[in-house]
Amino acid sequence: MTDATGTVTRVPGLLYGGDYNPEQWPEEVWAEDVKLMREAGVTMVTLGVFAWARIQPGPEEWDFGWLDGLLEQLHAHGVAVDLATATASPPAWLVRSHPELLPVTADGVRLEFGSRQHYCPSSPVYRAAAVRLARALAERYGKHPAVALWHVHNEYGDHVTECFCAESAAHFRRWLGERYGGIEALNSAWGTGFWSQHYRSLGEVEPPRTAPGPVNPTQALDWRRFCSDALLECYRAEKAVLDELAPGTPVTTNFMSMFKALDYWAWAAEEDVVSDDAYPDPADPDAHVHAAMNYDLMRSLKGGAPWLLLEQAPSAVSWRPVNVPKRPGLQRLWSLQAVARGADAVMYFQWRASRAGAEKHHSALLPHRGTDSRGWRETVRFGAELRRLAPVAGGRSTAQVAIVLDWENWWALELEDHPSARMRWLDLLRPWYAALHRSGTAVDFVPPTAELDGYRVVLAPNLYLLRERTAQRLAGYAAGGGHLVCGPFSGVVDEHDHIHLGGYPAPLRETLGVVVDEFWPLPEGAATRLSLADGRQLSATRWTEWLEPHGAEAVARYDEGPLAGLPAVTRRGTAWYLGCDLGPQVAVVLGEILRTAGVTPVLAAPEGVEATVRRSPGGAEHLFLLNHTDRPIVVTLPAEWTTANDLLAPDRVPGPALTLGPLDVAVLHR
Amino acid sequence: MTDATGTVTRVPGLLYGGDYNPEQWPEEVWAEDVKLMREAGVTMVTLGVFAWARIQPGPEEWDFGWLDGLLEQLHAHGVAVDLATATASPPAWLVRSHPELLPVTADGVRLEFGSRQHYCPSSPVYRAAAVRLARALAERYGKHPAVALWHVHNEYGDHVTECFCAESAAHFRRWLGERYGGIEALNSAWGTGFWSQHYRSLGEVEPPRTAPGPVNPTQALDWRRFCSDALLECYRAEKAVLDELAPGTPVTTNFMSMFKALDYWAWAAEEDVVSDDAYPDPADPDAHVHAAMNYDLMRSLKGGAPWLLLEQAPSAVSWRPVNVPKRPGLQRLWSLQAVARGADAVMYFQWRASRAGAEKHHSALLPHRGTDSRGWRETVRFGAELRRLAPVAGGRSTAQVAIVLDWENWWALELEDHPSARMRWLDLLRPWYAALHRSGTAVDFVPPTAELDGYRVVLAPNLYLLRERTAQRLAGYAAGGGHLVCGPFSGVVDEHDHIHLGGYPAPLRETLGVVVDEFWPLPEGAATRLSLADGRQLSATRWTEWLEPHGAEAVARYDEGPLAGLPAVTRRGTAWYLGCDLGPQVAVVLGEILRTAGVTPVLAAPEGVEATVRRSPGGAEHLFLLNHTDRPIVVTLPAEWTTANDLLAPDRVPGPALTLGPLDVAVLHR
Amino acid sequence: MTDATGTVTRVPGLLYGGDYNPEQWPEEVWAEDVKLMREAGVTMVTLGVFAWARIQPGPEEWDFGWLDGLLEQLHAHGVAVDLATATASPPAWLVRSHPELLPVTADGVRLEFGSRQHYCPSSPVYRAAAVRLARALAERYGKHPAVALWHVHNEYGDHVTECFCAESAAHFRRWLGERYGGIEALNSAWGTGFWSQHYRSLGEVEPPRTAPGPVNPTQALDWRRFCSDALLECYRAEKAVLDELAPGTPVTTNFMSMFKALDYWAWAAEEDVVSDDAYPDPADPDAHVHAAMNYDLMRSLKGGAPWLLLEQAPSAVSWRPVNVPKRPGLQRLWSLQAVARGADAVMYFQWRASRAGAEKHHSALLPHRGTDSRGWRETVRFGAELRRLAPVAGGRSTAQVAIVLDWENWWALELEDHPSARMRWLDLLRPWYAALHRSGTAVDFVPPTAELDGYRVVLAPNLYLLRERTAQRLAGYAAGGGHLVCGPFSGVVDEHDHIHLGGYPAPLRETLGVVVDEFWPLPEGAATRLSLADGRQLSATRWTEWLEPHGAEAVARYDEGPLAGLPAVTRRGTAWYLGCDLGPQVAVVLGEILRTAGVTPVLAAPEGVEATVRRSPGGAEHLFLLNHTDRPIVVTLPAEWTTANDLLAPDRVPGPALTLGPLDVAVLHR
Repeated sequence: MTDATGTVTRVPGLLYGGDYNPEQWPEEVWAEDVKLMREAGVTMVTLGVFAWARIQPGPEEWDFGWLDGLLEQLHAHGVAVDLATATASPPAWLVRSHPELLPVTADGVRLEFGSRQHYCPSSPVYRAAAVRLARALAERYGKHPAVALWHVHNEYGDHVTECFCAESAAHFRRWLGERYGGIEALNSAWGTGFWSQHYRSLGEVEPPRTAPGPVNPTQALDWRRFCSDALLECYRAEKAVLDELAPGTPVTTNFMSMFKALDYWAWAAEEDVVSDDAYPDPADPDAHVHAAMNYDLMRSLKGGAPWLLLEQAPSAVSWRPVNVPKRPGLQRLWSLQAVARGADAVMYFQWRASRAGAEKHHSALLPHRGTDSRGWRETVRFGAELRRLAPVAGGRSTAQVAIVLDWENWWALELEDHPSARMRWLDLLRPWYAALHRSGTAVDFVPPTAELDGYRVVLAPNLYLLRERTAQRLAGYAAGGGHLVCGPFSGVVDEHDHIHLGGYPAPLRETLGVVVDEFWPLPEGAATRLSLADGRQLSATRWTEWLEPHGAEAVARYDEGPLAGLPAVTRRGTAWYLGCDLGPQVAVVLGEILRTAGVTPVLAAPEGVEATVRRSPGGAEHLFLLNHTDRPIVVTLPAEWTTANDLLAPDRVPGPALTLGPLDVAVLHR
Repeated sequence: MTDATGTVTRVPGLLYGGDYNPEQWPEEVWAEDVKLMREAGVTMVTLGVFAWARIQPGPEEWDFGWLDGLLEQLHAHGVAVDLATATASPPAWLVRSHPELLPVTADGVRLEFGSRQHYCPSSPVYRAAAVRLARALAERYGKHPAVALWHVHNEYGDHVTECFCAESAAHFRRWLGERYGGIEALNSAWGTGFWSQHYRSLGEVEPPRTAPGPVNPTQALDWRRFCSDALLECYRAEKAVLDELAPGTPVTTNFMSMFKALDYWAWAAEEDVVSDDAYPDPADPDAHVHAAMNYDLMRSLKGGAPWLLLEQAPSAVSWRPVNVPKRPGLQRLWSLQAVARGADAVMYFQWRASRAGAEKHHSALLPHRGTDSRGWRETVRFGAELRRLAPVAGGRSTAQVAIVLDWENWWALELEDHPSARMRWLDLLRPWYAALHRSGTAVDFVPPTAELDGYRVVLAPNLYLLRERTAQRLAGYAAGGGHLVCGPFSGVVDEHDHIHLGGYPAPLRETLGVVVDEFWPLPEGAATRLSLADGRQLSATRWTEWLEPHGAEAVARYDEGPLAGLPAVTRRGTAWYLGCDLGPQVAVVLGEILRTAGVTPVLAAPEGVEATVRRSPGGAEHLFLLNHTDRPIVVTLPAEWTTANDLLAPDRVPGPALTLGPLDVAVLHR
Repeated sequence: MTDATGTVTRVPGLLYGGDYNPEQWPEEVWAEDVKLMREAGVTMVTLGVFAWARIQPGPEEWDFGWLDGLLEQLHAHGVAVDLATATASPPAWLVRSHPELLPVTADGVRLEFGSRQHYCPSSPVYRAAAVRLARALAERYGKHPAVALWHVHNEYGDHVTECFCAESAAHFRRWLGERYGGIEALNSAWGTGFWSQHYRSLGEVEPPRTAPGPVNPTQALDWRRFCSDALLECYRAEKAVLDELAPGTPVTTNFMSMFKALDYWAWAAEEDVVSDDAYPDPADPDAHVHAAMNYDLMRSLKGGAPWLLLEQAPSAVSWRPVNVPKRPGLQRLWSLQAVARGADAVMYFQWRASRAGAEKHHSALLPHRGTDSRGWRETVRFGAELRRLAPVAGGRSTAQVAIVLDWENWWALELEDHPSARMRWLDLLRPWYAALHRSGTAVDFVPPTAELDGYRVVLAPNLYLLRERTAQRLAGYAAGGGHLVCGPFSGVVDEHDHIHLGGYPAPLRETLGVVVDEFWPLPEGAATRLSLADGRQLSATRWTEWLEPHGAEAVARYDEGPLAGLPAVTRRGTAWYLGCDLGPQVAVVLGEILRTAGVTPVLAAPEGVEATVRRSPGGAEHLFLLNHTDRPIVVTLPAEWTTANDLLAPDRVPGPALTLGPLDVAVLHR
């Protein structure tokens, strides 16, 4: 429900605010909260995320009075509400009367109340109670003018992504029944001829609980699919109630960036707007690159539509072993990075720092120290600054490059008993993304079912699991002149995790013009040198392959070891294959390919400067320039831009170049 | 029941002996044991620690005959008995008829019989059986002349410090009921507004079993309090029986040095004499510093009264991954170190090395090799030497410096989801203690409720949890001219683990003249340079803070990083704040403070030499000089001491200096 | 049932083939399989290992038709069958109707179906079902001409070596009852006087489930004995059926090299022929040394009789974290190494690479790529080469040196709470074996009950647990002039894990002429220098001892540390004692001893070349020369050999020396 004016909610401009948990505080604090929100320029708060016990203190008791009043007050002061359905944390009374709704681990341990997310996704009791709560809220506030957004549950899959209880087992069997129809289709898909695992009926099937050795991999893969689906059913049930009772108000559930357990392509399709909780680690020098990647994913999940940064930390979080704060300037920079990459909201966990509980050491817009604190001054300052960026809201970006991201491939790639347990999706993806980021190249993520024709280059850092129809799509893309780049250990299995026989990467063998005779993983610490045709030397770690060209030319060859002389990187027409893991050096190869494909960067920005462009439906364009370093950097602008129109620094001297201070940002308008 | 003559039992001089477990041996060995004890000068043995199954072979069977005889024989040969109540290891018959008394882990695993300490501290069955056994022993031996000390149970909290069974849960609820009165007080204390954790009744509360994510921190903190109390109840029940039936004989239970799970301040208050089991690691070059710290704690637990070293190893233990023996001279040195720091007993685990069982590779006074062994010769030699130190018994030491040790702070500090999981009590405390130790400064430990006026300096390496009344006491101390030194991450929460709002360290903000705007923990490997006013450079690791002076002056400032220019160490009058972790370099800052406060060391001893003084009630003084190095060291004595009166070396040439050989000890008398 | 002609089955020459799992494939593939087996020269396949669910699809359903046909077809094409009883993986229908047969961990977790080896070894239901299946197969195929070998179960002890369920507990009690007769004998053996562990009846005893602290070590030792025996009972029950119904056909079960959980001396005694599954790691530079050791064990298990290499990988496996393939030449070299050390079969897991399931990434004779692959070409080439080695079949080797291997010592040595947890059997053994291997010295493994007179040197790298009768045997051997070499930490406990009192190594003290006063383990990273009499310096790591000579002379003494000047290595007559762990430097000491004892190597081969001799019953001899390096090496032959008769290279120029290419092998015949 992204409306044509470029805002995803009824609230104009970029949303600013955070999670507001008044139930943690005495009522006398609430009035001060609203007053301070005005002072800070807060335009939206997320309300009620963990308020189930407060709203429904007992099975048949409801307490809406406090919410009525708060909504009234917030509305009166111009603060819109993202109203949560509060279903992530069932109250003690529900758990104690239905202990069977607590989740169970693979070892059979039933997890206890006292934390959060303590529910079995398949529990009918939990589901009924959650929907009942959502319905009660929607009936009361479905048309309340303060409510600009509905927030279903909270971070589905946080802590608990799977439950192994008997109820979950029965649900899994129903799900398998729908997927496979009969038991022999399951036996065939799961390859139960192996290790005497044949089932005579669905009733014999259980979840992949802890077993003596490795469990059936297809069972494990289906379990991942099921777990994503089981949680999605929970979401759908709440969403249906909201659609019915609060028509016209957009609905979201907050994602957790690039999160393995949930297939966000499927999830995003059921949201009105995508929202994300993003927690880059200030102690990680590459945090902004990983963040950019996650934001590009969020932007891509609904085809480029603006998304909402619903949660981030103003400074430190509290759940890492060591929680380093954001040094001055960093929270502004990282917030604007999200906007630069498509966010129409900059929101935080949380409004007021908790006094008690497991997250009291998490930073907040209003710190423990109160308003006489650096944190609060920053909250006010940044709120004001963000208002200047209102014209950016609704703007979209375009990209010439796409990266294929397929959750079922991620799940399959990381199953047990593979040639190397070191082949992890994020480890493979990140160097490819980083190469694009460093070169200033805009990129979209696409699902394996995407239409690819609009892209000059399509990157598939890994496609271990490759369905025939995906392979055909990729082959067709390359055949049509598209530049296709496949990473190692691809084209190995089909959707049932069955090997594509006849030589990997079987379904793309023709397109790529290569056959992999054998995978040649490298242990920790090992590396193999290789050379490009022009003599430049690179080094492969983690993974190599005994690769034979069948129509492709060698772009690089190994210089040493058992693979000496064999191709490491190949090209057939516009189809490239990288048969090894080059780590950060993949930038060299990708750089060549991007040049060949004629891909143009957003801006030839100096190292350390990130550049993006957002274009409003109305035609306005904004160039974001972000300096991720601690030193000033001079950026020379393309002819079509001028420093004169920096929304953040209206008083800049006009000219063809500008100096970005450490961690500083410019947002040029035209 | 420390009597005025300076001995804690009826046995004169320093106690010498060890755990005696005759039930592991055929009776024919016992006579040899007693003969050899005489040869070694043993004056006391601890009897019956693991003899429950021997004393009570069945529910209604009792076998005291062997004990009768042994007590008789020991008494006849002048060996006093520390008689154990034997309740640490319930017999198989009891466990099998009441499997519910076995302890249960947080994951729900009921631990099996076959080791020791296999009981739920809350089990009424276990408690009744233990008290019944203690009563039977006390009825029989309460007035036996051989019994000079009662030894309740063994090392409470070893292996099992907590049980998560239903009985423990019910006990926890009763304990909470007494603590909070009503459920809303609990809800308020636990901050159950957070994460929808509100309870409607105590019946809904359970122990903090394994949960999906972090559990409620106040629940976890109360659980620690409860677990210490639950075990203390077990102790109290046995003690009451002994007080009734064996009046006049002191009662102890052996502690385990500075042990997190039990609040030894509360425990020591219920003992007649404090006793300790100490196992410094010969492979640790700082072992003697850690040992000194533990001994100072034991000395402090009952206001400076002599304590008993009830267990130590003659050489190697058997429960470390690698158990390095004590090189020649080390066991003598370390034994005398305990005496130097207030011990009136030097006892060992165990008398005769076990032939079978889990501790057979633990060294003993009488080794497997028998009397033709280095170990036995050392046992005899040291027994003779110890007799010369009889005048030392009962002596006390004084200190100008106190360290605040608060168990509930220890527990709170190490809860989950803190700014840094690297902030551990022992890691913070040890460098501070080591600085004092190296400078020869005597120190007492004090509880947060202590009277502080007698000390020139009070050190609080950490007070994360700081009750208002403790803060007031510390503030009053500083206001009265006392030198107060607070370490980082202090004054953060109250007794419910709720944040002291308004800027840390809120309740000491005025006294210290600082406000902490934000905690700035450092990851492993990171360090931040800082400079003292005189230009000396130090380095902070693990922890720094964004610290703002409000009345304090900067003693040191950061030289680099986001905190550059901010104060790292401050002083307001006689109140110092160290806002960072300086590791061993804290010695530089503490050294300045001690000088400022006019603290005088026991002796300006060369590095590697430890010096203490014990003063007898009768006025005699003993100066202990211990050389912890492997080289000879010359020690120059203060004017009031002379080398002529070395109890251990009566033939020393009199003079103002003496040469201590490697690992050697002198005990000067005046 | 090794027959006099030198072949262990009715199949002439060396067996070649692998596990054949047709149940994983559609029937149309089977005909191609048989055709390709002929092409590759396959002479035997192992059939049915995981076919239980296929053979017996339901409790009363049997499907033999497919097996009938396959046996027919294989027989018709000259491929013999090693027929498995298929009992390692009970079908789902059996598990679901009898969930109590699933194994239970020490924590009480019942392991789930979906992997393999999911059975409790003590389960009467499992046992009855397994024997019923074996009987059905034996009744049908007991006299089938295709069946040349019976293969009971698969890799007993893989994944599950122990079960802690109630049924296992009852079985353990029965086993204990048989071992000890009455409960007081058990109490005495287990030393239950320690820690109040006395049992009044067997009914009170349970398996060593997870307990609060360390469990009774003798209980743990008996548990290991019981677990080996419990699985052996399973084997015996199936074997009895085969002996009854398939007389004359040899029976085996495939071992897993030097495997801790099973006492292979006891197991081998119940086999007709020993077989092994060997998976040396191509990423380990010492893999061939470890492999040689395992093969020598297999050769030794039935007194030198040829054994069968039933499983190895053609290239990479799939169950290591990183599975490095075999570089070209390595699988040939390592296969021939097995033959060189007594194997009469070179077989593989598996024939055709699986398309699905947990082992699909495991290499196979017929790779996923099919016949147009390096792997398949190698399969065909090596099959042809192996036929040339037919004369080798049945040959035996002799050795002048024996190593004592005692499983109960292995178990006891690695119990908890020892002086050092770093003293592990394989870590102690491997440097000793490597020294022999490097010097070209042939070696047998012998059980502690072996007749030793035929050996010049007997090595005991460790005998922590030393029964009196073993000690007497060793003492007698040394007294008779045999050269006995004992490693450190030996002679410490008896069969009940009770200390041999009076000074270790008590039962060998006289023979060795030493007393160990105290064990002196070294932590990780520590080392102690020592010198031989001739001045050569060595270094001890991991372990030293305070050793006193009582009749022995010092061969080496410590140069530093607390043991400086004490003997590190001693000799009394022909009895040596190594009181420390010298790591690879043990080769220096063992080299001296071998020289002293007049032991002659097979061949004074250059470093990197392995040499063995096999002698056929008919008198023919074969000298194997294996180059384990990647460079060519010239080997000079002893006078009695000539290069002219290389079975693998019939066209070699005759002469006194030959050049072995990288990874190449020569097999000289005379």
